Amino acid sequence: MSFNSFGHLFRVTTWGESHGPALGATVDGCPPGIAIDEAFIQQFLDRRRPGQSKETTQRKEPDAVRILSGTFEGRTTGTPIQVVIENTNQRSKDYGEIAQQFRPGHADITYHQKYGVRDYRGGGRSSARETAARVAAGGVAQAALAQLVPDLKIYGYMVQMGAKQINRARFDREQILQNPFFLPDALAVDEWADYLAAIRKGQNSVGAAIEVVAEGCPAGLGAPVYAKMDTELAAAMMSINAVKGVEIGEGMAAAALTGVDNADEMVMGPDGVEYLSNHAGGILGGITTGQPITVRFAVKPTSSILTPRRSVNTRGEEVEVITKGRHDPCVGIRAVPVAEAMMACVILDQLLMDRGQTGGARGVIG
Amino acid sequence: MSFNSFGHLFRVTTWGESHGPALGATVDGCPPGIAIDEAFIQQFLDRRRPGQSKETTQRKEPDAVRILSGTFEGRTTGTPIQVVIENTNQRSKDYGEIAQQFRPGHADITYHQKYGVRDYRGGGRSSARETAARVAAGGVAQAALAQLVPDLKIYGYMVQMGAKQINRARFDREQILQNPFFLPDALAVDEWADYLAAIRKGQNSVGAAIEVVAEGCPAGLGAPVYAKMDTELAAAMMSINAVKGVEIGEGMAAAALTGVDNADEMVMGPDGVEYLSNHAGGILGGITTGQPITVRFAVKPTSSILTPRRSVNTRGEEVEVITKGRHDPCVGIRAVPVAEAMMACVILDQLLMDRGQTGGARGVIG
Amino acid sequence: MSFNSFGHLFRVTTWGESHGPALGATVDGCPPGIAIDEAFIQQFLDRRRPGQSKETTQRKEPDAVRILSGTFEGRTTGTPIQVVIENTNQRSKDYGEIAQQFRPGHADITYHQKYGVRDYRGGGRSSARETAARVAAGGVAQAALAQLVPDLKIYGYMVQMGAKQINRARFDREQILQNPFFLPDALAVDEWADYLAAIRKGQNSVGAAIEVVAEGCPAGLGAPVYAKMDTELAAAMMSINAVKGVEIGEGMAAAALTGVDNADEMVMGPDGVEYLSNHAGGILGGITTGQPITVRFAVKPTSSILTPRRSVNTRGEEVEVITKGRHDPCVGIRAVPVAEAMMACVILDQLLMDRGQTGGARGVIG
Amino acid sequence: MSFNSFGHLFRVTTWGESHGPALGATVDGCPPGIAIDEAFIQQFLDRRRPGQSKETTQRKEPDAVRILSGTFEGRTTGTPIQVVIENTNQRSKDYGEIAQQFRPGHADITYHQKYGVRDYRGGGRSSARETAARVAAGGVAQAALAQLVPDLKIYGYMVQMGAKQINRARFDREQILQNPFFLPDALAVDEWADYLAAIRKGQNSVGAAIEVVAEGCPAGLGAPVYAKMDTELAAAMMSINAVKGVEIGEGMAAAALTGVDNADEMVMGPDGVEYLSNHAGGILGGITTGQPITVRFAVKPTSSILTPRRSVNTRGEEVEVITKGRHDPCVGIRAVPVAEAMMACVILDQLLMDRGQTGGARGVIG
Repeated sequence: MSFNSFGHLFRVTTWGESHGPALGATVDGCPPGIAIDEAFIQQFLDRRRPGQSKETTQRKEPDAVRILSGTFEGRTTGTPIQVVIENTNQRSKDYGEIAQQFRPGHADITYHQKYGVRDYRGGGRSSARETAARVAAGGVAQAALAQLVPDLKIYGYMVQMGAKQINRARFDREQILQNPFFLPDALAVDEWADYLAAIRKGQNSVGAAIEVVAEGCPAGLGAPVYAKMDTELAAAMMSINAVKGVEIGEGMAAAALTGVDNADEMVMGPDGVEYLSNHAGGILGGITTGQPITVRFAVKPTSSILTPRRSVNTRGEEVEVITKGRHDPCVGIRAVPVAEAMMACVILDQLLMDRGQTGGARGVIG
Repeated sequence: MSFNSFGHLFRVTTWGESHGPALGATVDGCPPGIAIDEAFIQQFLDRRRPGQSKETTQRKEPDAVRILSGTFEGRTTGTPIQVVIENTNQRSKDYGEIAQQFRPGHADITYHQKYGVRDYRGGGRSSARETAARVAAGGVAQAALAQLVPDLKIYGYMVQMGAKQINRARFDREQILQNPFFLPDALAVDEWADYLAAIRKGQNSVGAAIEVVAEGCPAGLGAPVYAKMDTELAAAMMSINAVKGVEIGEGMAAAALTGVDNADEMVMGPDGVEYLSNHAGGILGGITTGQPITVRFAVKPTSSILTPRRSVNTRGEEVEVITKGRHDPCVGIRAVPVAEAMMACVILDQLLMDRGQTGGARGVIG
Repeated sequence: MSFNSFGHLFRVTTWGESHGPALGATVDGCPPGIAIDEAFIQQFLDRRRPGQSKETTQRKEPDAVRILSGTFEGRTTGTPIQVVIENTNQRSKDYGEIAQQFRPGHADITYHQKYGVRDYRGGGRSSARETAARVAAGGVAQAALAQLVPDLKIYGYMVQMGAKQINRARFDREQILQNPFFLPDALAVDEWADYLAAIRKGQNSVGAAIEVVAEGCPAGLGAPVYAKMDTELAAAMMSINAVKGVEIGEGMAAAALTGVDNADEMVMGPDGVEYLSNHAGGILGGITTGQPITVRFAVKPTSSILTPRRSVNTRGEEVEVITKGRHDPCVGIRAVPVAEAMMACVILDQLLMDRGQTGGARGVIG
Repeated sequence: MSFNSFGHLFRVTTWGESHGPALGATVDGCPPGIAIDEAFIQQFLDRRRPGQSKETTQRKEPDAVRILSGTFEGRTTGTPIQVVIENTNQRSKDYGEIAQQFRPGHADITYHQKYGVRDYRGGGRSSARETAARVAAGGVAQAALAQLVPDLKIYGYMVQMGAKQINRARFDREQILQNPFFLPDALAVDEWADYLAAIRKGQNSVGAAIEVVAEGCPAGLGAPVYAKMDTELAAAMMSINAVKGVEIGEGMAAAALTGVDNADEMVMGPDGVEYLSNHAGGILGGITTGQPITVRFAVKPTSSILTPRRSVNTRGEEVEVITKGRHDPCVGIRAVPVAEAMMACVILDQLLMDRGQTGGARGVIG
């Protein structure tokens, strides 16, 4: 995996800066014959689009995706698919003031140190705007999966935002797309909205935790030792802006468990092996079991805040940094569709890899 | 990254099964002129060697490493380095009884499903024994880093084992290699030993959490967007057997923080920029800041236990599984040197990648 | 190297079809701080542009390149550079008749067989138009090389077109860009023009051989065993449309030589080692010697011709195929700037790879 | 493809030096369930073994291969296969005299320049001995192909040695393995033997050209644009020691052809499409047609000769170099089984890649 690419057979390379003319993804290795068009991809982009509500940044962009290559008469041809989104609403003047200083907790300083030059407008390459390209690539993956694994369902939702956590007893998957927080619980929406409004009023921001589930993923995907499904998913999620932790199944809580408790016992059901629990998050030895794959990750709070913080500038002077401009008080919200996109890309890639190596054959049980 | 390889310019491919004749690592891309010999690598292998105490498996193997290629007169030549460890103590008869049945929580069933055939002896490729090859490869990386970044120090330690957690107020790095738990606190050793003895006596096993720190890593390593240092480290740690969660800096706790709290403020010190905190774990925007890199990960409890668990066998019959043989009650302990090895490999790889792309140049501050 | 990518640290992925809305290249890994703009890249595209003379296809396109990402204020930032060329002059109706039949010697049939679906308009992905994207990527590489290796000079020229071969005694490098055949011999131009006119009049096409030279390439680039400079160059040239043979130095003629004749003897000159000959084409053991790198390759004749040829169609019927439309009678001519682009990409990539692995250090002589 | 690896899904990394303790290949991505054992691989190694006749080097080594991983009860398991060959007959003292001087036409000087250090014993990593590891890896590929594509036949033979060329009118495939020159013509053997004896007596060496054919390869393998079958084969052959030219089908002769002549016309036969000629060498647009794949390459003469040549040493002094020791007067002879091995690896890799991307489906004709 090179600097800006991920995946093996289904390989995505994203490009573009926040305030450049456009950004996009070069998607190589998609199987041929997949029904796809711009409207299909657009629905995923619409979910992460900024300007949807007061919870996300005020920047209003249509984020209309265009397919520039790789399809013909509504189907993929097996050649590279270029998906492009123009940046139509760059207010570069908002960012002029941070050209010379480094926001604490932000990539400003490390880009400067590594490359000597950086596109400071809106964070340039380090902007969360890059994730729009991932969502477009994820749309391609979703189209392929819809055809190759029709029963697969991938869905993400917020499980935590600062001090707020979801009540799993009230989990209702149908609610997720009905509110701006991707919350699986209609009753919590107002409470979360008030909480975030207070954060914003306090010139502050807040972290979040997101869970993504893939139901209906076939057994046998992923491979020892470095293309383990957990490894691929951990890398995929950790590559999203501001993510600092990733968990599969029990995750960090596994450290507290005993082997007796953690064992996912098996029995024979009418359709074959049935697991009595899913501590493993659907992955054993790096290979999917057929159970739901469950991934959780934490997004740190947005580093661009209105509260002044101590920092330095390129001239080596100490400064106080206040970041004006349009910034999500909880960047984690929009990470939900991004994580779904990454999950789709990883599963499709591993499906193709497995088909390549093993032919998709499976050892029988019974 | 192919199935069994990791890294880009410093690229490691491990091979071998638990009960085959040998296992090892093919290490490609090591810089030339690095002083190295078998004794240097051996010291790292000795730390993870089984049979050191009653806390780890009773299998006694010397785990003597041999270098078969890539060095000449005590220095690396820039060509692939093959490090091999013979398996001298395979008691295969211990494992015959699990040839047809699947341990709950173990890779047995997924290997069977994916490949149709598996080397069931000692877990074959899925055995934690594979990590010996990583430690040998890590030894090569440590030799290169000792020459290229002399100030770099990488060290790991246990922070949790089941119900036990370390007391960070008593943290003493000098203690880590003085006890069989890699504990940074001499006073806790007996307590942990008693706890683990009880776990073992209860025919059970237990999970663990490990922290690895790299001090003295230069700023500027790692690259957006998919070769971020966090991404590479997350993948590296998640690829270790039984790991189910990875955290950088604040990790999952970042979800609860606000932007004001999470900002790592900066001031100018006598030697340049100084950070007042390290919530980011030494990585911003995927690129190292020069602060200590801190990674934490959780290892699930060993799935091979003496307590009977419900399962199925290859004939589709329900069975009760009891796993005899030599198994660590806490496989997390030996993950400490493995994680150090992975950290060394990732840092060296990113150092070479950065040297390639940017020439190692750095943007100045001041 | 994935399906549509080449290079390692300097990694190019091309995308786009002949008659889609656009085509381009995603260029990842370019060093930061390189001075570049669209005008610099455009000069290389102008050399291969169709419609320049009657020797090349009549399709008139400006082939104006746009940089969509990866630069800021006239310099590269180290992030991916997207170079795009719009297709402005697609006369798709020309190609309707070949939608169901396969041109002999063309990729029509194999794309159909492999993918089941193909963009038949103008050859789709298999069109030589794809090479415009390579030339744009090569322009990025040339900009980086101009800054990193100022003495490097890369130039290609025709050495054969059907029955015509150059007279090496009259070789004049200054002439190459002064005629539409990239001929290093002004006296031959009219003769070649007449020859090609006759080929065209005869409703035929003709093959060609091109030579590319890199002078001033530093010693030490390329690496055993599979990233040998000869290997990389052979792959790069063979990946160009219609290329069927590649030679380094003596090439196929090496089969006829003896070791006494083939030895490139060395003496000490005022500036170090001097070679008395260059049978090796500047590469020994896969690593550059510092002598000029010389590569030669053959391009088969255009398969789209007006002379009827026997073929079959998708319905399995025998047909006679005549290809109307705009086609170069010698597609090899435009391969000259393409080969220069590939040479530039390979040398830059190997320069970065070498800098990564060895730090660019060199063993001394004397 | 990293420094010492080739292939994508079927990925081979070779390691080892001529006079180190051993050399071998790490073979990752082989499909599971393939019947294989050491005897199967050994037959391929026996063909390239030194010391078989007076035409090849006098070094007598059994070159016995051992499989250290990746198989279980006679079948591959899908995990990495390590094949190792011990170096049992290193007469290092033969090479002491060339430690400080560089053989003209040899990798001595470039390894020194690039790495600063080199294992000069027998050429170290640059020795043709490395190809034994490729042949072992090729044996694994052959085992997989025998099971997956039973009709596939891969065979190579000499077509030229210095001034001698084969008479294609007398081509007899059955003869190839009946003589030490891999000659498809029994009548030529004595003549070639006399010719080579004279070369040797003259303290000289000679180049060679080899052709490799794959019959029965399915249509649809290879992919645009950089994983073209021609590209992969060109890279594979050019990576073999001393190879300086590669041709597919007509190869360099394509430069002299017209489109009318070069068109491989098609008709419908009883079993589908039939080609009336094979100028393309079985590959159109980078994808196999189902016709025989034909590759030809040239090997330069051995650079280690007894005739004195002018050179320099590490101290920068001019010297005369005479290379004693055991060296093939025509290293091209042993390249025949090496090229077959490379062909097998490339075809298997592309078969798996195609199965991954397209599922191995094929567009119908008729």
